Amino acid sequence: MSLNTFGHLFRVTTWGESHGPAIGCTVDGCPPGVALSEADLQPWLDRRKPGTSKFTTQRKEPDEVRILSGVFEGKTTGTPIQLMIENTDQRSKDYGEIAQSFRPGHADIAYHQKYGVRDHRGGGRSSARETASRVAAGGVARAVLAALVPGLRITGYMVQMGVKGIDRARFDAAEIEENPFWCPDPVAAKDWAAYLDELRLAHNSVGAVIEVVAEDVPAGLGAPLYGKLDSDLAAAMMSINAVKGVEIGEGMAAASLTGVENADEIRMGPGGPEYLSNHAGGILGGISTGQPVVCRFAVKPTSSILTPRRTVTQAGAEVDLITKGRHDPCVGIRAVPVGEAMMACVLLDHLLLDRGQTGGRRGRIG
Amino acid sequence: MSLNTFGHLFRVTTWGESHGPAIGCTVDGCPPGVALSEADLQPWLDRRKPGTSKFTTQRKEPDEVRILSGVFEGKTTGTPIQLMIENTDQRSKDYGEIAQSFRPGHADIAYHQKYGVRDHRGGGRSSARETASRVAAGGVARAVLAALVPGLRITGYMVQMGVKGIDRARFDAAEIEENPFWCPDPVAAKDWAAYLDELRLAHNSVGAVIEVVAEDVPAGLGAPLYGKLDSDLAAAMMSINAVKGVEIGEGMAAASLTGVENADEIRMGPGGPEYLSNHAGGILGGISTGQPVVCRFAVKPTSSILTPRRTVTQAGAEVDLITKGRHDPCVGIRAVPVGEAMMACVLLDHLLLDRGQTGGRRGRIG
Amino acid sequence: MSLNTFGHLFRVTTWGESHGPAIGCTVDGCPPGVALSEADLQPWLDRRKPGTSKFTTQRKEPDEVRILSGVFEGKTTGTPIQLMIENTDQRSKDYGEIAQSFRPGHADIAYHQKYGVRDHRGGGRSSARETASRVAAGGVARAVLAALVPGLRITGYMVQMGVKGIDRARFDAAEIEENPFWCPDPVAAKDWAAYLDELRLAHNSVGAVIEVVAEDVPAGLGAPLYGKLDSDLAAAMMSINAVKGVEIGEGMAAASLTGVENADEIRMGPGGPEYLSNHAGGILGGISTGQPVVCRFAVKPTSSILTPRRTVTQAGAEVDLITKGRHDPCVGIRAVPVGEAMMACVLLDHLLLDRGQTGGRRGRIG
Amino acid sequence: MSLNTFGHLFRVTTWGESHGPAIGCTVDGCPPGVALSEADLQPWLDRRKPGTSKFTTQRKEPDEVRILSGVFEGKTTGTPIQLMIENTDQRSKDYGEIAQSFRPGHADIAYHQKYGVRDHRGGGRSSARETASRVAAGGVARAVLAALVPGLRITGYMVQMGVKGIDRARFDAAEIEENPFWCPDPVAAKDWAAYLDELRLAHNSVGAVIEVVAEDVPAGLGAPLYGKLDSDLAAAMMSINAVKGVEIGEGMAAASLTGVENADEIRMGPGGPEYLSNHAGGILGGISTGQPVVCRFAVKPTSSILTPRRTVTQAGAEVDLITKGRHDPCVGIRAVPVGEAMMACVLLDHLLLDRGQTGGRRGRIG
Repeated sequence: MSLNTFGHLFRVTTWGESHGPAIGCTVDGCPPGVALSEADLQPWLDRRKPGTSKFTTQRKEPDEVRILSGVFEGKTTGTPIQLMIENTDQRSKDYGEIAQSFRPGHADIAYHQKYGVRDHRGGGRSSARETASRVAAGGVARAVLAALVPGLRITGYMVQMGVKGIDRARFDAAEIEENPFWCPDPVAAKDWAAYLDELRLAHNSVGAVIEVVAEDVPAGLGAPLYGKLDSDLAAAMMSINAVKGVEIGEGMAAASLTGVENADEIRMGPGGPEYLSNHAGGILGGISTGQPVVCRFAVKPTSSILTPRRTVTQAGAEVDLITKGRHDPCVGIRAVPVGEAMMACVLLDHLLLDRGQTGGRRGRIG
Repeated sequence: MSLNTFGHLFRVTTWGESHGPAIGCTVDGCPPGVALSEADLQPWLDRRKPGTSKFTTQRKEPDEVRILSGVFEGKTTGTPIQLMIENTDQRSKDYGEIAQSFRPGHADIAYHQKYGVRDHRGGGRSSARETASRVAAGGVARAVLAALVPGLRITGYMVQMGVKGIDRARFDAAEIEENPFWCPDPVAAKDWAAYLDELRLAHNSVGAVIEVVAEDVPAGLGAPLYGKLDSDLAAAMMSINAVKGVEIGEGMAAASLTGVENADEIRMGPGGPEYLSNHAGGILGGISTGQPVVCRFAVKPTSSILTPRRTVTQAGAEVDLITKGRHDPCVGIRAVPVGEAMMACVLLDHLLLDRGQTGGRRGRIG
Repeated sequence: MSLNTFGHLFRVTTWGESHGPAIGCTVDGCPPGVALSEADLQPWLDRRKPGTSKFTTQRKEPDEVRILSGVFEGKTTGTPIQLMIENTDQRSKDYGEIAQSFRPGHADIAYHQKYGVRDHRGGGRSSARETASRVAAGGVARAVLAALVPGLRITGYMVQMGVKGIDRARFDAAEIEENPFWCPDPVAAKDWAAYLDELRLAHNSVGAVIEVVAEDVPAGLGAPLYGKLDSDLAAAMMSINAVKGVEIGEGMAAASLTGVENADEIRMGPGGPEYLSNHAGGILGGISTGQPVVCRFAVKPTSSILTPRRTVTQAGAEVDLITKGRHDPCVGIRAVPVGEAMMACVLLDHLLLDRGQTGGRRGRIG
Repeated sequence: MSLNTFGHLFRVTTWGESHGPAIGCTVDGCPPGVALSEADLQPWLDRRKPGTSKFTTQRKEPDEVRILSGVFEGKTTGTPIQLMIENTDQRSKDYGEIAQSFRPGHADIAYHQKYGVRDHRGGGRSSARETASRVAAGGVARAVLAALVPGLRITGYMVQMGVKGIDRARFDAAEIEENPFWCPDPVAAKDWAAYLDELRLAHNSVGAVIEVVAEDVPAGLGAPLYGKLDSDLAAAMMSINAVKGVEIGEGMAAASLTGVENADEIRMGPGGPEYLSNHAGGILGGISTGQPVVCRFAVKPTSSILTPRRTVTQAGAEVDLITKGRHDPCVGIRAVPVGEAMMACVLLDHLLLDRGQTGGRRGRIG
């Protein structure tokens, strides 16, 4: 990770501001010979796209991604893939007032303090709009993963909205695509709809917890001690706007367990070692074990709300500020496809790193 | 972060195994002209040192650090600083059995699967022993921070052991050094002693939550969108052995808040903007705001316990394994100085990065 | 340097193929608050632009650069600057035959061997067209250097074309812009015109040596031992298409000197130490001394010529190949602005690195 | 390359000063399972060792390398390999005077200007002594290359000393190990002995040109456009102390060639394409072609000579300085094994990078 780049070998550099002419990213280090077109990327972008329900911002963006380089006759060439998404519905007039005031909970004041200059329109670089580039890059990673590790599956969903969690007993993967919250619990999904409506009408917003699981990940991805798979996942998820916490496996709850409880015991199964539990979230010593990789992250409530909050202006005056504009009452919803994209990028990156260093060499068991 | 290195400009590369002749690290990119000697580093190492109470491993290691390069006549020269700590009490005989079996919860199986070969003695590279190198590097970072940002303070402490948390109403920073748990709540500290004794005698272990706070951090450290201060803190803390979750400010609890609650409102104080709360943990948009930087992480219970756990051998046989040897019943205790060290390294790294890019330029408020 | 990126803090990632829709680059790590617009970049691009004389390719490209991000209200914001140049005159029909044959001296065969797939149109990624992105990035670097180190000057020129060198006694900087070869010797320039015309009409091409000098570079840029200023210049210049050799100061001729001759003796001048010669090319131990930084590089003759050369097809047939199309008879000519751009990027990068690590701290002399 | 590290995946970080207690390096990213012991490294170090003939410094250093980590039971484990070489014959008294004066041609003044503090003893960090670490790392790279690409051979030799070059017609690889200059031309070797003796007795020194050739390098190593194999070789060679120029294939002489001459024509041989010449030095578009990789570099004359040279002191006084001590009259001699080591490291690094990105995928010809 270096300023605006993430990844070691599969490297993604994003660029662009919320209200500039376009946003995008450069994907470098992509393996060659993988089938890829805009049609492979667009469905992922459509999942993140604003304006798809009353629970997301009403900004209208087609989010059409264009591939400007690195693909020839339908295949990746191994050279940098430039992905560009034009901004169309910019409506800068919505954002006049915030040029001078700092919206509480937003990056405005931090950008001002660091750079002395900032593109205040719609949050500029720190807008959640940037995550469209991540989803596009994640689409590339998914296409490559599909070619290299056919069985690998990545699934994201919301497990908590505000104070309301899901009931794991009702977990049904088929439900995830059936509601506007990517919620695997149909009862919770209904409850959340009413809950979020109420918050929205009260000019309020709320946080969420997202879980992303990758199944059939090969054992052996990651490295001691700073190129650990969990370190990179933590950095990747924490780099998403508004994320305040990241967990692997048991996460913070691991603190409450005893060693006897937490040990993921092992037996031999027909295809090799099998674990009787997955407290570890599929990662030991920074390296994947072949168990599902489980990552969760918390998204804070949208800071842009219609309830006035006390703040100051650049000139030092104390004011009360309402953030007008078109905002997500729960920005965590659209973070689901973003979390999936980051998981895809990190896994592919470590897959390439691993075959670089070890050549895919694997110690046998049994 | 790249395999065994962390940091952008202030870069730390650690090396060494638990039972090899020595461990250590190279600290590159250190500013020149800073007073530094072994005596500046040793106190930090002594805090992490094993064998200081019955609640930590009884392995005896003096953990004496030697500076082999990069310091001349008592000052850093700007060239790489090599820090070496010899391993003295290696007692490899303790570890014979685990050469063939995989200890549940340990990295043994993952290393075997990735590399096909592993130094099984005491966990090899994945041993908590590696964290001594981090603490040494953190000592260098602290010396430089003391020179560059005199007021900056970093304090780590334990806020939860197993199911038992502290009472924040009793928080007393002066208590932290007064008990073997770095616990700021004297009542909790007493309670924990009994609790941990019981677990230890039951051949069990337990997890913990550590909080590390940095005060008087300059505003403006960090960068969008992958060189974010919180991303790097998350990666740094998650890279510590046995850490399963990382939080900034409210952390996972941010999910439960509403936007009205979560907004850290701002007023003008005598020295500039002042915040009425710190849900953000001192970071907005990946950039420090001048508020205290607050980071928490969960450490899982020590996996090495005397209670037998089911596992398999390299040959594929199913066995029950007891991990003998000298182990911490709560490895989280010794993670406190490690967390502080990582905070020091990350902050200094971002301080250097920031003055590289912006020259320390700052936008004024008021 | 990592695949398609160069630079440590001031990082440039280029993307795009000769006959794709566009080429461009992302400039990350740029200091904030620097005045910048397309008008600052275009003049540099116009110097490299094809079709400006009969001695360069007749491909017509306006090479209009657009800034898509990172600049707001005429100033850099410190966030990534995306620069895009659309390809307009692509004429792919010129390149049909080379889809199946490998042009001798071109990267075609190496790309095929590495990636198994390649964009053969006009050399794809390995086309000299990519250098337009470098020149655009160099324009950004120059704007920042002008703000940070006002006196610093970078000048490139050609000192040898084929077997014909300049006469240093006739060196006149004012002549450089007065002939199509960026030649500082007006007599040589005339001679070269006739020489190159002859070669061109003989369906041949020729190599060249370019020299780039930076004056008033601050002392102290660079670092031991792999972040050396000369190492990075060598990598930067060698990364330009068709470059086969790089020299600092005396360069390869340093081998012929004795230690007595080569010592750049020092006396005290009014403003500090003054050197009586500059065999070192302004760099000692990888660090700038304040003397002019002198770098030279050799560009091989254009490989695309109308004289048939023996080669093979992808299917393994032996053929004779003529490279039709519009090609520079001496591609070294257009390498002059490219070399200047690389010098600007490397110097700025090291300026930022140095103030990051040392804070611009300088040891006094006298 | 970043300050004191080189390499992308196979990363070497060197540390240590000429007169500190030890020097060494960390080799990270090494493939696991490769047989390695000190006995594999020592022969390479012995070739570079000082004091082996009257033509090299009389400093006596056993240069015994110790492996402190990353190797277990005779095999690399994939974790960082720490290599340490103790300094034994430090004789700091030789260097008293240069604490205050700047030796012309040395890095003393540049280090002072950059860092404000420097270890003046024997050149400190900028001493040629650092190259022992490179040779040790190169030994690791060679062991891995021997395992991964059995046929690959790397050979370095001197082709020019001062004004005296070899006669290529007399090139005999068997002669290289038979004289103290690694000279492949036995007649030149005799001539050089007399020539260098004369220079040495005249209190003078001289430069040299070294050529390093790698044969049976797989096609496909390297990447556009900044991770080029030739860029990385240029950086690697230029990073060696005293190197002022680097060439690939024809090098600077490529400028004098025409396109007709320079084209390396191709025919089909029994095992695939065969080139009729190798002006390119085995690299096209930054990617290896399977031809021998040919790299040359010029080493300036040793700056430490017994002839007085004019210089200044730190206090600004003008003085005449003789550099006493034990110095190589032609430091280029000992640069031969260093150049070989850098070639080995760069090739292995690109081999790992390539199999990371492409999986060793190769386009067929014929």
